[in-house]
Formats: sequence, C-alpha cells, structure tokens
Amino acid sequence: MTTSIEPSHSAETGEDLREQVRAAARRAQAAAGQLALASRAVKDELLHAMAAALVERAPEVLEANLRDVARARENGTPDGLVDRLKLSRERIDGIADGLRTVAGLPDPVGEVVRGNVLPNGLQLQQVRVPLGVVGIVYEGRPNVTVDAAGLTLKSGNAVLLRGSSSAAESNAALVAILSEVLVKHDLPAAAVQLLPSSDRASVQHLITARGLVDIVIPRGGAGLISAVVENATVPTIETGVGNCHVYVDEHADADTALRILLNSKARRPSVCNAAETLLVHQDIAEDFVPRAVAELRAGGIAVHGDEQVVRLGGTGVLEATEQDWDTEYGSLDIAAAVVESLPAAVEHIREHGSGHTEAIVTDNVRSARQFTARVDAAAVMVNASTAFTDGGEFGMGAEIGISTQKLHARGPMALPELTSTKWLVFGDGQVRPAN
Amino acid sequence: MTTSIEPSHSAETGEDLREQVRAAARRAQAAAGQLALASRAVKDELLHAMAAALVERAPEVLEANLRDVARARENGTPDGLVDRLKLSRERIDGIADGLRTVAGLPDPVGEVVRGNVLPNGLQLQQVRVPLGVVGIVYEGRPNVTVDAAGLTLKSGNAVLLRGSSSAAESNAALVAILSEVLVKHDLPAAAVQLLPSSDRASVQHLITARGLVDIVIPRGGAGLISAVVENATVPTIETGVGNCHVYVDEHADADTALRILLNSKARRPSVCNAAETLLVHQDIAEDFVPRAVAELRAGGIAVHGDEQVVRLGGTGVLEATEQDWDTEYGSLDIAAAVVESLPAAVEHIREHGSGHTEAIVTDNVRSARQFTARVDAAAVMVNASTAFTDGGEFGMGAEIGISTQKLHARGPMALPELTSTKWLVFGDGQVRPAN
Repeated sequence: MTTSIEPSHSAETGEDLREQVRAAARRAQAAAGQLALASRAVKDELLHAMAAALVERAPEVLEANLRDVARARENGTPDGLVDRLKLSRERIDGIADGLRTVAGLPDPVGEVVRGNVLPNGLQLQQVRVPLGVVGIVYEGRPNVTVDAAGLTLKSGNAVLLRGSSSAAESNAALVAILSEVLVKHDLPAAAVQLLPSSDRASVQHLITARGLVDIVIPRGGAGLISAVVENATVPTIETGVGNCHVYVDEHADADTALRILLNSKARRPSVCNAAETLLVHQDIAEDFVPRAVAELRAGGIAVHGDEQVVRLGGTGVLEATEQDWDTEYGSLDIAAAVVESLPAAVEHIREHGSGHTEAIVTDNVRSARQFTARVDAAAVMVNASTAFTDGGEFGMGAEIGISTQKLHARGPMALPELTSTKWLVFGDGQVRPAN
Repeated sequence: MTTSIEPSHSAETGEDLREQVRAAARRAQAAAGQLALASRAVKDELLHAMAAALVERAPEVLEANLRDVARARENGTPDGLVDRLKLSRERIDGIADGLRTVAGLPDPVGEVVRGNVLPNGLQLQQVRVPLGVVGIVYEGRPNVTVDAAGLTLKSGNAVLLRGSSSAAESNAALVAILSEVLVKHDLPAAAVQLLPSSDRASVQHLITARGLVDIVIPRGGAGLISAVVENATVPTIETGVGNCHVYVDEHADADTALRILLNSKARRPSVCNAAETLLVHQDIAEDFVPRAVAELRAGGIAVHGDEQVVRLGGTGVLEATEQDWDTEYGSLDIAAAVVESLPAAVEHIREHGSGHTEAIVTDNVRSARQFTARVDAAAVMVNASTAFTDGGEFGMGAEIGISTQKLHARGPMALPELTSTKWLVFGDGQVRPAN
C-alpha cells in the first residue's frame, strides 16, 4: 500500500517530510498542554458534538470513502481488505456510537491511584495524568481514526494519526470534521492530526520523534507491529499478535470444552483473540479428539494434528509441521496436539504462545490454579472462550488495542492505559533532615 | 572505566561475549519461571539468609573491595568516585539491613489490582505478576548489586547485573555469596547473575536481548542513562536526571521558602532530587531575592542569576548564561531567575525541567492548584523540599531508581513497579455471542 495519492508529498525531500512530522508533533505537544487541563464536562461535550457532526456530514465522508474504495479496487486489493476499508451509513453510525460510549466512561485524569499521609505530615497522592502526545500507526480501517481520537482526547492527550494511504481520503474527511468540532469548542485543532501517508518514511519520523511524542501504538498485522516496535526510539506498546491456545485438561467436561473450542476458533477467525492451537490431555484424548475433530470439521475448520491427533482423528486430519505450532492462522485452521500433562501444556504454550490469551477447560481446582499461576500471558481464561479478551467485553467500554507486552499495560488498553501518573506532595514547609 | 581486569573476556571475540550474555539471559529466564512461583515466605526467608551471609562473610567482600579500591587509586580515579566504591563493615551492615527492610515489605505478586464480575457471570481479576528478567546497568557503587538483587527477587524476578568494571571484584564477591544462599534455598543461582564488565559491549548485548530480557533499568549519570535508553531494543526505564526547580510564589511565606530552598539545594547537592534553579515571582523579588542570595551564599552556594537577580542580589551573584537554565549542577551552585507570573514559572519549567521534581512555595490555594495541575513532572511539591522524592521517604521501603519517563512507572520505583499484571478470567463455560 505504498501507492502515492498525494504527489506533493512524494515530491518532497526526506528532510521536508521529517520536519513536517516533527512540526505536527510540536503542535500536538502544545495542544496536549491544553487538553490536559480540559474538564470532563468539556471533553464529553466535545465527543458528543463529534458524534453528531459525523452523522450529519456522513455524505462527504462516504464520498471520500468511495474514492478510496475505487482506487483500492483498481489496484487489485483483495476483497477482504476492501471490506475493511469500506464505510456505510451504518458503519458511520456505529463509529459515532463509539464516541458516545467513550463520553460515558469515567475520566481517568485526576483519579487518585494511591495516597496516604507520611509520618512527617506530608500528604502524598499519586494521580493519573495524560501521557501527552500519542501516535497511532494503523492499517486500512477508517474507523480506527475516530476510535483512537475519541479515546486519546477523553484521556486528555493529543493524537498523531498515521493511517494507511489506502484510506487517505476517508481519513482526511473524518479528521477535517473532528478538527472543526475541536475549534468550535475552543480547543486546538492540532489535538487530532493526520500525518501524510503517501510515504512510508512518515512512520519512521513519527516513531523516532523522541521527546516530542510520548508513546506510539501500532494497530495492525504482525509485520506492521514488529516494524514499529523494532525501529522506534519513542516508547511503544506491542499489540495484538495472538497465537492463543485452548488446553483441554483431563478433568474437563467434554461438552463445555467443545463449546469453548468452537467459539474460540470460529467466532471470528481473523481476530487476535481467536484460538490457533488445541492441546488435549492424553488421558481424555481417545474420547475427546475424535469428537473435537468431527465438530471442528463440521464447522469447516481444517485440523493440523500431531501424530496422535492424526491417529485418533481419522483421515481428514492434516499432518502438522513444526511451523504450525507457531502460526497465527487467522483463518479456519487449527493446530492440535496431545500433551502428556498440564505442565507439558504449559511448556508448549511457553515455547509457542505469543502472550495474548490462553485458556484451560477443567473442573479441577488444582489444575485451574496451576494453569493460571504458570501461564505467562496477558489473559488466562478458565472455562471461558478466548474471544472474551476485548476491552468492550472486559467492561472498559472500548479499546485502543491489546497489549501483549509486560511494561505499562498488558491486555486490552482503554482510558487508564492512556495515562501516566504524577506524585503530588502537600506540606507545610517540611524539609528533609540530613541522614 | 574500561580497564580490563578479566583478560579472558577481553580476549574473546565480540560474538563470544554476545553469546555469553544471551546464555546468561536464557538461564535467567528459566530461573524467573521458578522465582515467579515462590511464596512470600520463601522469598522473605531468602532475603534474611542473604543478609546474614553478607554480614558473616564481610571479610571476603572487604578483601575483594580493597583490591578494587587499590586499582582505582592506581588508575588515578578521583576521591569522590573512590568513596562511592569503598565498602566498610558499616556499609555492609547497612546493605544487609536494606535486604531485611525489603523482606518486611508486602509481596506485590498476586495483588489484585482491579476485579469485578461481568454481566455474563465471568469473574475478572487483574493481578500483579513478576516482569521476568530485569537487567540493571549501573556504575561503581557495589551496594547497588545487593539492593537491586533484593528488590528484583522479592518481586519474583531474576536479575542480570551489569556493574562497573571498577567494582568487578567487589561485585563478584557479593554475587558469589547471594548465589550460594539461593542454592541453599533450592532456588536457581541463575536468578542473580553478574555480567562481564571488562568490555563495554556487554551493555549493548544486554540492552538488545529483546525477547530474553523484559526490562533494563540504568542507574547512574546522564551519559549512562541516555546511552542505554537510546540504544536499547529491550524496554527501558529512564531514571534519575533531575533539573529540579523551586518556585517561590508571590503568596509565599519567606521563611518557609528559604528553608525549603536551602534544604532542596544543599542537603545533598549531588543527588538527582536536589534543586538546581530558583524561580521568584517578581512581586516579592525586591524583598526575597536579597535574603535568598545572602542565605545561599552563607551556605557556600554560588548563585548564577538573571539580570534582575544580579541587580537585586548584589555583586556576589554570577551572571547566568542560557546554559545555566539547563544544567544539573550536582554541586553547590544554583541558577536563579525572576519570573513575572506563575504561568511564566510553569513555562520556564516546561522548557528547562527534566520532569523529575518541581516545587512551589505558596500560601495561596489557587496558586497551588494551578502549579500542581500545569507542571508535568514525576513529583510536584507544595511547600515541601524537593529532597523528599525518594522511595524510602515515600514509604516504599526502598527504591531501584526514580523514573523520569511517563510509561510504566513514574517517580520512585520499588516493588510494584517491578511487576506487570495479567488478567484472570474465571467462567463456567461462557462463550461470546456472534455480534
């Protein structure tokens, strides 16, 4: 998706583009200073007004989107990607509803996280504050433009959006509307800025603007995420790669296990919380594997099994290669293996998992405790579908991504995860004694 | 401090050293898996045993330390640095006490940070878990070796220590003792490992061991910190650079302001929470500046003033250059300026501060509220000395550094800051409906 649609940008020298991105970041910094002081009432009113403006001006967004879609088709973009790109009245209504939902969420800014009075009388408070300038690098879904703006504004931050060139016209139309609403509310338009997408180098300039940008969150496929994480000097959050497992313990109820397995795999195979591998305890494998294979195949799912799954599952099972254990299919495929014990399942997950979501199905308390203690992942499910790892499902109201790293935020990221903290210390003239 | 004391290392090829560091990191990963499951009782007993062993075997530590000190003197190391390097019976007792203090702190692992039951009956818990493998890069203070080991072990992590070559023998003696105690408690010696310090490249190998090391924390001067932060691919925490300000508001009580100013500057001028710049509101400058200059100078502190401070403070005031506003003196020097308003003070701090600690002295509630809301720093003091920004003073029992960044941790870092979280979801077979 390097197609240039903005010849003026691609004609620029690299230095100009770098300066353009840094100038946008400096404007964002100034805007962030204002946003940080905005009251909850002002921010919520802003988001409601943005929702209303998007619905009212849907025709101009749809017109811009039609041009993006036509260009994508001309370029031979696969139907799945064109579908992600496409907007409709309903989708715009959904995007506007998302803004209203965020407006209804509590304001994280100012929340007192910890606090106490020290022996010397100093009153200590750790309070949430905005991060400052948030960069989002994403692919062809124009809804991310508005979702990300809503969450970052509500948490008192300014946002630099670096979307895909394939959605450039849609994104520009959306940001134009958001900017106008900002200005109408006496807030700086620079709080939401779209960076040029015609040249890949703008990503590089964004992720290396250390000191100007406080955090960069990549949203998209594994390639995008690793490119951002590996080349950034700005702190980043690794998101969304999910090689998730469902482990069916020897003490599992088979019907529960099948229901969870099917839902984890097939509900939406392309999303990061979908299961990619089934692990079955050997003591129940004789019974469970044939049933699981039959149900998976009935659901149109191809099973890539290890030797035992092939033996127990019959002729329809494909032979798994070493690579299958590490693959995030994102499709109606699943790898399946028989393991000799719970620790062996944990070890398989340690070796092949991506730290996103891991599930155990069991009726045994010891198994549940062992699995939850030993598996190192953003989310560990006991008798529940992997599909629940989601900001909305967790009751956060929305999400800006699912962190699979351990620093700062892990799992679904919503408003509190877009904040930092500061310590406030109130005294009456206290000084610290010499030791 | 690149003096080689271990010829076997310096004779190795770069590739060997890289592999050596990575092998240590892999051993640390395996050790971290065991540490993560250790109970609080086991960890506390371990730390007490380490404290006892250090005291008992102090002679061998002191002997190794004497060799480090002698070598430093031969190399012409300045007295201040030799003093940091030097151990004594008393210092070892103090180090052992530090371990006992950490043993007495609550275990952060397993703490439930958030939790609730979702409408569908799923029980959601966000619990603290260890980060995994923590790397510490530090300078010539051998006490850091034990302090860092105590905090990382208590929080269930393994630690890779990369100290200064100047303290190589002291560090080796300390780590040998800690390792033996680990093994005696059936815990892996690899939970505390000292990396070779004879070659600077080992730092580079540590901070680029992405996937093997979960976090690197640099402790030391600005040069060390920026070298680590800028070259790391492993997530890092920026610590300790402190260009701190004391702003004396027009509504300040002058005596309180002077006491806080003197303590902030002179208690220990070399530490990062010491004040480096005084800002005075113009409406009280005529009275306050002459008194402040007199008291500062009486305390042996050189004042680098702007035009007005020079005018009001008399002949003893040095003329400040642009550079003074950005300097972390770490010495008995202070920059001083008159500002026309509180917003001007905030703007000066935004431009020149390092986001560590900023103080206002005022009796006016509006000024206090404005300053705390607008100043973006890890700690903001109202009528208290900047010297209070410290894990011990904040009641955390200890600290592994003071973060001046916004991600993950900000301000003094102790046990909870050395953890991540994971989401545990307990169900009875719940699956997620198709949208």
